[in-house]
Amino acid sequence: MNKDFSEIQSITIVGQGNVAWLYNDIMTKQGFAVNCISSRKEIGKEDLEADLIIIAVSDKAIEEVVSKFKLENSILVHTSGTMDMDILRNSAENYGVFYPLQTISKAIEVDFSSIPLCIEASNEKTFTLLSNLGNKLSKKVYKISSEQRKEIHIAAVFANNFTNHLFGIAKQELEKKDIPFEILFPLIDQTIAKIKENNPFDVQTGPAKRGDVLIMESHQARLEDDEREIYKLLSGKIIKKDKELK
Amino acid sequence: MNKDFSEIQSITIVGQGNVAWLYNDIMTKQGFAVNCISSRKEIGKEDLEADLIIIAVSDKAIEEVVSKFKLENSILVHTSGTMDMDILRNSAENYGVFYPLQTISKAIEVDFSSIPLCIEASNEKTFTLLSNLGNKLSKKVYKISSEQRKEIHIAAVFANNFTNHLFGIAKQELEKKDIPFEILFPLIDQTIAKIKENNPFDVQTGPAKRGDVLIMESHQARLEDDEREIYKLLSGKIIKKDKELK
Repeated sequence: MNKDFSEIQSITIVGQGNVAWLYNDIMTKQGFAVNCISSRKEIGKEDLEADLIIIAVSDKAIEEVVSKFKLENSILVHTSGTMDMDILRNSAENYGVFYPLQTISKAIEVDFSSIPLCIEASNEKTFTLLSNLGNKLSKKVYKISSEQRKEIHIAAVFANNFTNHLFGIAKQELEKKDIPFEILFPLIDQTIAKIKENNPFDVQTGPAKRGDVLIMESHQARLEDDEREIYKLLSGKIIKKDKELK
Repeated sequence: MNKDFSEIQSITIVGQGNVAWLYNDIMTKQGFAVNCISSRKEIGKEDLEADLIIIAVSDKAIEEVVSKFKLENSILVHTSGTMDMDILRNSAENYGVFYPLQTISKAIEVDFSSIPLCIEASNEKTFTLLSNLGNKLSKKVYKISSEQRKEIHIAAVFANNFTNHLFGIAKQELEKKDIPFEILFPLIDQTIAKIKENNPFDVQTGPAKRGDVLIMESHQARLEDDEREIYKLLSGKIIKKDKELK
């Protein structure tokens, strides 16, 4: 093999999860020659002749899948938010990361062009090829190091996983008194609009921010243990952060 | 005074804060005769001859402001999310609550017609008059008891105040590594879209939900004390809730 190319045209995707499905869908629509295979299937030589091999399997499975590879020309990337790029270094000359920063499920349609693509590469040439590909798929391509990707993942846990749990509690509390969750949607929308335009810490509101001890106590008295613990901790952190910023 | 009316036409608003300003703005635009006065000013007899007197002062000030009132025909309402309706019972024959469920500030424009109005009244006639007024201002009028209003306030603390703090932490973590907060906006938008269509607990994702101990430990090792405490507590609660639901 001694192939050189100035543009990625053929792509093999290894994996059967949501990310594999999403990349297959958008790349096929954009006219690329895509070959999507299961990691459990024997990966054939012809599968590894594509310009780009995308490993879209679970974090734990990546190393095992790529352990058999010795790619000279094809670019090898994984799509993980948490794994180092360097876990690919023994499997290819040219490698990188092609990570879509979005919660992806087949059930919920997303506009791919608005998904931030976090790209990292083992060398300049590979980075250029990957970001040219990225720019054909999304309006938002970022150069992100493995170190930065870890920080993004932590931030996403706070901004997505943890907020989701709090929204769950809000719904649960409302339903105790037969109030539809929808009643909070305009407030939630406004919360999001505000944090997009301001530092969230600067526009904090509520009983903790006001230091309204009576209200905080009356709220805690109405909550069950788990929710009370969360209420106490987060109120305390809001008060503390507010003092730090003053 | 022996006035009876089938429709609210004239309104006095007492207060100078954001809610007073917002009601004054929308009610004037809708063609009502609105008189907006400061609670610190001597409230004159003529101010109390309006069909509706709206007390839009801070929670703590409501009782003092209304203590001088003895209204026979005018409807008296407060606009608080937390105070009982009954704090008005010695000040008027007909009283209630007219509470806009939104975080309101002069700096950020809101479409009033999408703000949920939570209405409660001391009798049927008053409720009808208030909800007719509400329907002229907003598409979303709810009959909400004082008890329900307290639950809404607690839910709003979780869905607005606490999530805001978590978004602040997400931004802070990203900025440590020079990553723009905007990179998370599509993920945040998707989080909100998902909770509007599903029970948030049913669509929980992330390391805690997956029971990915290694990732949770590596995240905690990178966080400062305050953020680590929040990470630990919320991850534990996600794991616990997930077990409860299985």
